[in-house]
Amino acid sequence: MAHTIGLLHPGEMGATVGAAARLNEVPVVWASDGRGPQTRGRAEAAGLADVGSLPAVVEHSGIILSVCPPHAATELARTVAEQRFSGVYVDANAVSPATSRDVRQIVEAAGARFVDGGIIGPPALKPGTTRLYLSGVEAARVAACFRHGPLEACVLDGPPGAASALKMTYAAYTKGSAALLIAIRTLAMHEGVDAALLHEWDLSQAELPGRSAGAVRSNARKAWRFSGEMEEIADTFAAAGLPDGFHRAAAEVYRRLSGYKDATSPPSVEDAARQILAGTASDKNSAS
Amino acid sequence: MAHTIGLLHPGEMGATVGAAARLNEVPVVWASDGRGPQTRGRAEAAGLADVGSLPAVVEHSGIILSVCPPHAATELARTVAEQRFSGVYVDANAVSPATSRDVRQIVEAAGARFVDGGIIGPPALKPGTTRLYLSGVEAARVAACFRHGPLEACVLDGPPGAASALKMTYAAYTKGSAALLIAIRTLAMHEGVDAALLHEWDLSQAELPGRSAGAVRSNARKAWRFSGEMEEIADTFAAAGLPDGFHRAAAEVYRRLSGYKDATSPPSVEDAARQILAGTASDKNSAS
Repeated sequence: MAHTIGLLHPGEMGATVGAAARLNEVPVVWASDGRGPQTRGRAEAAGLADVGSLPAVVEHSGIILSVCPPHAATELARTVAEQRFSGVYVDANAVSPATSRDVRQIVEAAGARFVDGGIIGPPALKPGTTRLYLSGVEAARVAACFRHGPLEACVLDGPPGAASALKMTYAAYTKGSAALLIAIRTLAMHEGVDAALLHEWDLSQAELPGRSAGAVRSNARKAWRFSGEMEEIADTFAAAGLPDGFHRAAAEVYRRLSGYKDATSPPSVEDAARQILAGTASDKNSAS
Repeated sequence: MAHTIGLLHPGEMGATVGAAARLNEVPVVWASDGRGPQTRGRAEAAGLADVGSLPAVVEHSGIILSVCPPHAATELARTVAEQRFSGVYVDANAVSPATSRDVRQIVEAAGARFVDGGIIGPPALKPGTTRLYLSGVEAARVAACFRHGPLEACVLDGPPGAASALKMTYAAYTKGSAALLIAIRTLAMHEGVDAALLHEWDLSQAELPGRSAGAVRSNARKAWRFSGEMEEIADTFAAAGLPDGFHRAAAEVYRRLSGYKDATSPPSVEDAARQILAGTASDKNSAS
């Protein structure tokens, strides 16, 4: 059983991770319990074996790979630990080094070994776009499951939590600067200077009109799961004694866009701005 | 006297604004009272006439142009108002629309007319790089002083405060994203993943290694005057009901770099990061 991977869960990203392992002839199992038809379709297309329930996944797997939204990572580790999993547990989620340490403690207390992971790039459909960073004693063993195919597994030399720290610092710019651009276009509309800003950008920052529109187009429908990631990044800055405001603000921008989760097409910049201006600040992160 | 401009003050940017007016054969006066030899050298090179004191500038000028660090803008307006200036007062500083309204009230109460301004670009040494945006009833009259030469004066159609709002939204990205990049490199060093981040950036965000190093090189020695501007931008977001954390954090990053004000050369990214990590959060904006 040592070489079977249990994949929790085959979401948009996870399914491509599972498919990449299958390409390397690694058996991959998953649990359809409580998952929707879309997940089932993706898992079948990726060649993953449905063993039904989470306890069955734990029983069949030598390695468990956790790929889920950041706010669910700790809870998922707890559920696996309750099943006394004693293999290698890989947390590949966008979480802070501190959350990664929590997950490590949870799974090690149950008898498992821990590998820290972080995925950078889009779902791994073609080579060269997506890397699975890994750190920890058993990292090389996990990387061996992805030797060929579109997902490049990279073992980091760094300290424990290095893979999570790398993911945090990387997403801090990509998703943080996207939120900043969305917030700026929103402010410019509120102040009646959006056309003037676009004109000045055309003259001196020629990529920004397109980048700001792209930030809305690409991110509005995923915003519901970005806010948790932004809070993890903010926590990482705060733990280092650095200002965490960039990503508390980014979390708030994405929270106010979370209503686009099931939209069939992305909103216009104007519609997204109206939504953000109408959004009330949450209790956790006020706007002022 | 209607066409004499009083320039307060001929700093690095202001001196080029004065020089641009001189190119249009507009007389420009300034006050050497309390200013250093560097300012005097710049003013002389720009062809500005020294009338000695601020009251003398008020007496000689039909238009007063305020070009100073944002934290000094309101105080400077108050000093001019005390001299009962009754011409056109242009605030060309990087201040929020709310601060611009304060300045307007101060100078109008003394009998002057107000024009809101905002300068975008580096000191105006060559054509095409730098624009002076203007809004308000007398904006066209001010713009007429800059018809030729390297400083392009642009009258905005927008509401009162439009020039300030445009400056705020523009600098929100240029200086805000620079602070974000500096903070991210600092966090990456703290976490021991800076080399890994630079490698991943090389693969997927090829401009960021250079941009982040450039952010330190270009901004560290100007950081002392950027923190006030970042607070003005944060205030602008807050007044619109939008999250202000991006620029509170940026202000803190620049505050922690303010010790490089008189450095003869810019710090390395490593030195800047050490400085930021060592910096204690100010009372006003804590790091957490």
